[in-house]
Amino acid sequence: MPQLHHVQVFRIRYSDVDQMGTYYNARALEWFEWGRTELCRTLGKSYRQWEEEGVRLPVMTAHVDYQGRAQYDDELRMTTTARMDGRAKMRFDVEIVQSETAAPVCRGHTIHAITDRSGRPIRPPKWLLALMETSGNPTP
Amino acid sequence: MPQLHHVQVFRIRYSDVDQMGTYYNARALEWFEWGRTELCRTLGKSYRQWEEEGVRLPVMTAHVDYQGRAQYDDELRMTTTARMDGRAKMRFDVEIVQSETAAPVCRGHTIHAITDRSGRPIRPPKWLLALMETSGNPTP
Amino acid sequence: MPQLHHVQVFRIRYSDVDQMGTYYNARALEWFEWGRTELCRTLGKSYRQWEEEGVRLPVMTAHVDYQGRAQYDDELRMTTTARMDGRAKMRFDVEIVQSETAAPVCRGHTIHAITDRSGRPIRPPKWLLALMETSGNPTP
Amino acid sequence: MPQLHHVQVFRIRYSDVDQMGTYYNARALEWFEWGRTELCRTLGKSYRQWEEEGVRLPVMTAHVDYQGRAQYDDELRMTTTARMDGRAKMRFDVEIVQSETAAPVCRGHTIHAITDRSGRPIRPPKWLLALMETSGNPTP
Repeated sequence: MPQLHHVQVFRIRYSDVDQMGTYYNARALEWFEWGRTELCRTLGKSYRQWEEEGVRLPVMTAHVDYQGRAQYDDELRMTTTARMDGRAKMRFDVEIVQSETAAPVCRGHTIHAITDRSGRPIRPPKWLLALMETSGNPTP
Repeated sequence: MPQLHHVQVFRIRYSDVDQMGTYYNARALEWFEWGRTELCRTLGKSYRQWEEEGVRLPVMTAHVDYQGRAQYDDELRMTTTARMDGRAKMRFDVEIVQSETAAPVCRGHTIHAITDRSGRPIRPPKWLLALMETSGNPTP
Repeated sequence: MPQLHHVQVFRIRYSDVDQMGTYYNARALEWFEWGRTELCRTLGKSYRQWEEEGVRLPVMTAHVDYQGRAQYDDELRMTTTARMDGRAKMRFDVEIVQSETAAPVCRGHTIHAITDRSGRPIRPPKWLLALMETSGNPTP
Repeated sequence: MPQLHHVQVFRIRYSDVDQMGTYYNARALEWFEWGRTELCRTLGKSYRQWEEEGVRLPVMTAHVDYQGRAQYDDELRMTTTARMDGRAKMRFDVEIVQSETAAPVCRGHTIHAITDRSGRPIRPPKWLLALMETSGNPTP
């Protein structure tokens, strides 16, 4: 059964950190997007394949709660979870903690339209619904 | 009387745009932060001066609603508004539209702690409260 | 007569600065690209129009010499100059200094292929050659 | 014996790609910096530790040759090599290829001053020279 969540571990890069010595706030959204990519791969079809098949997931809403500092080279653990949000949208919840101590770094979510190449909303493809239905309790 | 909102016009750079041909979602938070910088300057004291005087405004929450596409070289108009959020936090609301047509691009807000250099919450300095009180109706 | 160089003034954003308190090294290439965009506009045809007409300028080589520090909110002055590099390539030279003191910040250049949408090299369009020939001595 | 080169494999993120469908040119310098971080770790002392001991490696020169396209989600292989450049500078050479085909993506180098916290040049610490001397033939 495909997993609907994905855990990945990574280190903060020099380019992620600002002069307060912690990660710059916009980086969180880049990490969230990276988490979506890796979760899709885990589900059995990479997001690149989604795009090749004509599906796009433009972000409609993004929300981040910043919970704790994280410095250059800190090792973080990011957990990404996917679910349908109604019948026509997808939602990804993300939680990032310090890898060693599990101290919270940030958490948030993004909500996505499901569209074709030109940005027009489409009904979710069957393979996508099938993936999403394989889980009894998709919330983390 | 100092303004509690600020309007700035800018063009989308090549580096802001992804392969969907619209601005990459994390860029919104970089623009929001730039708006805060320019609003603070308008208020009479640059954010760099705030920092030199020991005040930091780390982001606690960020929220973005993506409303419309915007391409490379589009001219956008961003309006940033500041207010106190309770007695110990600041809130900035941002709205970005297409400069020519006023078509919505994105809007959102950030909520900030007020801290010292080491990240410890502090009471807002008097000059900050004075700035914030000069407006009868600080909400946009 | 169109100018083959362009001067623009801008401030360093918070997101440009790393924990050393100076601009992060990769930002220089983003600024260079922004300079190219604004220079093209000055020349009478925006780079977006170039793209719409099927011309691309992918970077073949980039070189940066880092000369001095520049902090958050420093005002910089960037001068960008264009010329043909042989018959099939373009070269942009860039110089960035502190706006107030003219202290050097960085300088460098990029060399670009001239290609069609698919990345295949093409002969420079006539309008491009005409633009480039309007200057007797295009080097800064 | 510590290695003076390091190989790492990574995938291109959505945020790395521009509307030409290939990686944005400035990303190369971010990858190069990430390669330096991981190489230092391999050498036995992380760059974060270097910084904690008061050593900084500000970039003096960066050079990139762009050799081939690379799309979102492509898997790349980056090889980073370190050596002294004279007695007071360090040089890192980087080569990035497609992981599957070894097709060239880009290559380049950065040259770094060795300074203290305040940016003043210092003589390389003994531990650094010791690391660099362990290799008979440091060039890749």
